[in-house]
Amino acid sequence: MPMNKPEHLPVLDAADQALVDGVLARQLRPLAKTITLIESQREDHKARARHVLEALLPHTGGAMRVGISGVPGVGKSTFIEALGLYLIELGLRVAVLAVDPSSSLTGGSILGDKTRMELLSQNPAAFIRPSPSAGSLGGVAEKTRETMLVCEAAGFDVIIIETVGVGQSETAVAGMSDIFCLLQLPNAGDDLQAIKKGIMEIADLIVINKADIDAGAAMRAKSQMKTALHMLRPASLNWTVPVLTLSALQKQGIADFWTAVTDYRKAMQASGEFEAKRRHQALAWMWDLIDAGLRSHFRSHAQVKHELPGLARAVEEGTTTPSAAAMRLLRYVEKDAG
Amino acid sequence: MPMNKPEHLPVLDAADQALVDGVLARQLRPLAKTITLIESQREDHKARARHVLEALLPHTGGAMRVGISGVPGVGKSTFIEALGLYLIELGLRVAVLAVDPSSSLTGGSILGDKTRMELLSQNPAAFIRPSPSAGSLGGVAEKTRETMLVCEAAGFDVIIIETVGVGQSETAVAGMSDIFCLLQLPNAGDDLQAIKKGIMEIADLIVINKADIDAGAAMRAKSQMKTALHMLRPASLNWTVPVLTLSALQKQGIADFWTAVTDYRKAMQASGEFEAKRRHQALAWMWDLIDAGLRSHFRSHAQVKHELPGLARAVEEGTTTPSAAAMRLLRYVEKDAG
Repeated sequence: MPMNKPEHLPVLDAADQALVDGVLARQLRPLAKTITLIESQREDHKARARHVLEALLPHTGGAMRVGISGVPGVGKSTFIEALGLYLIELGLRVAVLAVDPSSSLTGGSILGDKTRMELLSQNPAAFIRPSPSAGSLGGVAEKTRETMLVCEAAGFDVIIIETVGVGQSETAVAGMSDIFCLLQLPNAGDDLQAIKKGIMEIADLIVINKADIDAGAAMRAKSQMKTALHMLRPASLNWTVPVLTLSALQKQGIADFWTAVTDYRKAMQASGEFEAKRRHQALAWMWDLIDAGLRSHFRSHAQVKHELPGLARAVEEGTTTPSAAAMRLLRYVEKDAG
Repeated sequence: MPMNKPEHLPVLDAADQALVDGVLARQLRPLAKTITLIESQREDHKARARHVLEALLPHTGGAMRVGISGVPGVGKSTFIEALGLYLIELGLRVAVLAVDPSSSLTGGSILGDKTRMELLSQNPAAFIRPSPSAGSLGGVAEKTRETMLVCEAAGFDVIIIETVGVGQSETAVAGMSDIFCLLQLPNAGDDLQAIKKGIMEIADLIVINKADIDAGAAMRAKSQMKTALHMLRPASLNWTVPVLTLSALQKQGIADFWTAVTDYRKAMQASGEFEAKRRHQALAWMWDLIDAGLRSHFRSHAQVKHELPGLARAVEEGTTTPSAAAMRLLRYVEKDAG
């Protein structure tokens, strides 16, 4: 397990030190409390969360980060429960997180309750955390990523990050996973959806679930997916994206799935791509946060707030050019910076 | 032709006023000079270009803006020449522009010379302008968009904006076109490329070129494209994306193509989507320019320049979190703004 060394450690107060110690001691209560701190919108909580995270950072990076996506009805919960129980039998500890930007609107379309993975949620070697319930996709994904780091510090061996695939959430999950797995139903319309939305391009592994219902349809879907994959440019020259058929409900094919995941990890580690991908993901994340921060700071500037509505209207009506309007507004933030 | 009224007109010096007058008088030399001014990287030229553009703005918006994309070898030049000559016969004036972000590297993979559209380039009712030769895709696209406005002020009835489809250039061209047309070859592999890259989703019209070579293959490709389109969500409820087969070389199907374009324009104007799309495009453009400006201003800050390399390394190595690094760097630009 790679351990990262920080350049400097913050001085923590007693309460925060207790959280850090508790997480490192693999206690569930401090773990849950730390995640709640990370999800908090309060400014003082944000500062505390940052300090706790920095103290935990040297103990992160040791888990296999598995992203799982698929349309509603594909059987994600059943699959994750079967996979989780399988991994626990292997002696591993498993955390299940979610990126679900719709949760603030709908009250959580995934992981809203624990009944959906009943056996897994009752298992002491598993930790299931619903998606943060507030904020934009960027905010939700940021908190999930930081929660993933806390779970790694708490010694979980596998982190499963789930998404229903609303809008850009697959990209967000792929951007924090070591391996991104796409669950498919055995029918052609579903395949095209995946191609259309560009998800097949970012998948490292494709799983056709519910193969028990119609084995023939599952085989046809598999061959279709393979043809389509053949025409896409591979993300890595050291990995051919496999298409697996399985039945999560019948617990058939779960072991083969995990073998494929570990094969992937071995191939990527041998070529150096495993660490390179993590470095790239972290840097891309930093730039996303910087861009969001710049935009938010820009919008909060008094003169920008004052002039933006009128200029936006002028641009829409064609009485000024987009570049003239942009330049006029940018002048305010640039002038302030001297 | 819609005419836009500016809120205020800049006072122009004699040289710039001469450019404006010349463009409005539909003279090719002032037109070319104005575009050169727009493409210039010099700061004083940029200011002049902005003033000239603002003076021309009330005279823009009157052309049909036709985006054309397709892979190399699909026959774009032959198609655009056949279309251009057909439109000129109808009494229309035609400008051909290009968004080609590779031009700075390769010396221009499209429109680098005029020999490729020999008859059209010699016709006085046509104006062909190669892609600006320097800058990023964003910069190239910005200049092409402004060149389009100048051509409209110069009374061109149809602006054809061409791209080879390198990376995100299709999105840039669709973002400045009233109608985005995708040229396809009559074979299945090509179709999948379009689906994969998400281009079919933004196409308003699909053309299968070279139908004269193998009419059977062209019909099969047409039926395949129609099936695929059927499964995509339509961009407008008032328009079903047509798939046309034609032969640009044999000049077969060009009139049908133009009928489809004018049908599209009528349907979109009747529903109000035509103007709504233009307003939306202009606003999205403004925000792209603002984001690019914010990022560039951020990167030029002395403290950011100084700390960015070290922090980026720390993020990559996992010794600090992306959010801690982002927050630290953002502090500088935010502090300056007080």
